Amino acid sequence: MVDILHKVGIEASSVDDVYAALTTVEGLSGWWADNTQGDGQVGGVLQFRFDAGGIDTEVVELQPAQRVSWIVVDGPEEWIGTTISFDLKQDGDYVSVLFRHQGWKEPVEFMHHCSTKWAIFLMSLKSLVETGNGAPDPRDVKIDNWN
Amino acid sequence: MVDILHKVGIEASSVDDVYAALTTVEGLSGWWADNTQGDGQVGGVLQFRFDAGGIDTEVVELQPAQRVSWIVVDGPEEWIGTTISFDLKQDGDYVSVLFRHQGWKEPVEFMHHCSTKWAIFLMSLKSLVETGNGAPDPRDVKIDNWN
Repeated sequence: MVDILHKVGIEASSVDDVYAALTTVEGLSGWWADNTQGDGQVGGVLQFRFDAGGIDTEVVELQPAQRVSWIVVDGPEEWIGTTISFDLKQDGDYVSVLFRHQGWKEPVEFMHHCSTKWAIFLMSLKSLVETGNGAPDPRDVKIDNWN
Repeated sequence: MVDILHKVGIEASSVDDVYAALTTVEGLSGWWADNTQGDGQVGGVLQFRFDAGGIDTEVVELQPAQRVSWIVVDGPEEWIGTTISFDLKQDGDYVSVLFRHQGWKEPVEFMHHCSTKWAIFLMSLKSLVETGNGAPDPRDVKIDNWN
């Protein structure tokens, strides 16, 4: 079992803005996939559509201003059954986001790609909250020939 | 044991340019730490100096145009004894770089930070080879209150 781990610090005076960007269709479409639909409440399914394909996640846990957790229910074979979580806390002028994408079966090349790509998207989340402008798919920063 | 894994694809017609950026002081200072000194040959020690502190790595393995591997011999406590490797291969118009920072004892918050920061620096490596301009420390992209 291998995990993808990341951290970004977002300059924000309240955790609520970051929490909203992780729990609403409007927020998620501003930093991850421009084409996002679905229901961000516990038990709801979020549908993210990318140039390269689609990912559906079911919302497993929400702790307002603290934690968001999903399980992947459809998408690339390597993603199905993996869990994605965001833990939030205020740390001075920053909101710290600890990110984990856990449950990968093998550290395949695609996992290396996804790890780097998650960093790019978390920087897009940071930009969205700090400036109002993220860089979601399809305007995301490309990292390799898989995009 | 938990690892940091990443992949970038660099638009380059030869693996040699990427290999040079990983094995020479001039190359390394162009994307990781502007203040880099030392010896990039096997058995040599490279000294990287950042705003936040220093890291020394010993070069463990070099396979020209294929693989570069270091062990960390000085730096943050969590880094000492960990290994850092870069595996290269030509993939069409791209040079694929598979990056691994292995041997972390625990998935501490600092590891989350370093994972994201490695993605930022690998994008700096990509930029250096593709455009001639990287963004090494201290001109690196900041990700949080730890920089």
